[in-house]
Amino acid sequence: MIRTLSIPGRGSGLHEITDQVVEVVREHGAQEGLCTLFIRHTSASLTIQENADPSARRDLEAWLDRLVPEGDPLYTHTAEGPDDMPAHLKAILTATSLSIPIVSGRLALGTWQGVYLWEHRHHRTRRQVVVHIA
Amino acid sequence: MIRTLSIPGRGSGLHEITDQVVEVVREHGAQEGLCTLFIRHTSASLTIQENADPSARRDLEAWLDRLVPEGDPLYTHTAEGPDDMPAHLKAILTATSLSIPIVSGRLALGTWQGVYLWEHRHHRTRRQVVVHIA
Amino acid sequence: MIRTLSIPGRGSGLHEITDQVVEVVREHGAQEGLCTLFIRHTSASLTIQENADPSARRDLEAWLDRLVPEGDPLYTHTAEGPDDMPAHLKAILTATSLSIPIVSGRLALGTWQGVYLWEHRHHRTRRQVVVHIA
Repeated sequence: MIRTLSIPGRGSGLHEITDQVVEVVREHGAQEGLCTLFIRHTSASLTIQENADPSARRDLEAWLDRLVPEGDPLYTHTAEGPDDMPAHLKAILTATSLSIPIVSGRLALGTWQGVYLWEHRHHRTRRQVVVHIA
Repeated sequence: MIRTLSIPGRGSGLHEITDQVVEVVREHGAQEGLCTLFIRHTSASLTIQENADPSARRDLEAWLDRLVPEGDPLYTHTAEGPDDMPAHLKAILTATSLSIPIVSGRLALGTWQGVYLWEHRHHRTRRQVVVHIA
Repeated sequence: MIRTLSIPGRGSGLHEITDQVVEVVREHGAQEGLCTLFIRHTSASLTIQENADPSARRDLEAWLDRLVPEGDPLYTHTAEGPDDMPAHLKAILTATSLSIPIVSGRLALGTWQGVYLWEHRHHRTRRQVVVHIA
């Protein structure tokens, strides 16, 4: 089964999408399987991280912003704005696809794991995440 | 088929788990398929790297330790110890899930490839890796 | 279905392999499914990135070269040449496996997405990418 999630734009940062993925798993109904996520963009990405303490997410965002700053004189690809090239770089350092097993009808996420769409651009654009379950 | 591997804690570093994964592939018995690994943690991750020369692994660990040091004044998420926030960062830079095709009944790993659990915390805690084969 | 692509060596950099993967998807013929790529090497990797403007690719290469330079005194694994240890590091920061859903008989890539083999060594060696479709 394939469903394409259309995630509303909320600006740069980590945005949890676990509930939307769980909903597709529930609709599919399999007790055992594999759920694969794929993001159809090159300036946003996927990651699985701690969903308990918001300070961990803020630190992830701040650290990656420092590693890949805007305005780096190395960039030549600047026509689409100062946040464009850092967005591509952040995307290659994180994940474009992720696979999570389904066990007893539920995603086999660990206790503290949540699924996140990591928006690397400032603008608020919808993003598409394709969910494949088999 | 799904099996959850419980990997004994051995402290921070790259710990090879290829043999445990191969054992599940053998139990499954398929000649052709896909083996997907998923780690149920946010402060340990998965990677596939050279299993020939231990110096390559030591350099990987040392380089990542330098890129993501403990005690960075940027961190605000410090309640769980100085190795916690670096562990989350190292996890997002490496892999939470990995898929390896099965060809002629064996993992299609290259000659020098081994599967590793990368423990990013100092303590010796068991870690769970879910193996899905289809 | 499994096919192993043998990609001619073209030296370090991002080399697009979308067409070769599309060819396997076409041969398979499924309207819906999952296409998984796995690279059988530890000094080359996979990534999905913008295939429109070549300047974005040049910046990705230049930025990663600067983050992981040759000749870093930290390296002890130097027997295989100055580009070997940076190659392993670049590989762990990008992807060894990638999964792309198939929708209506086509890879569900976004408008600007291309599949790339990222060669991290200077020499021109053939590389193997295993394609699994189910």
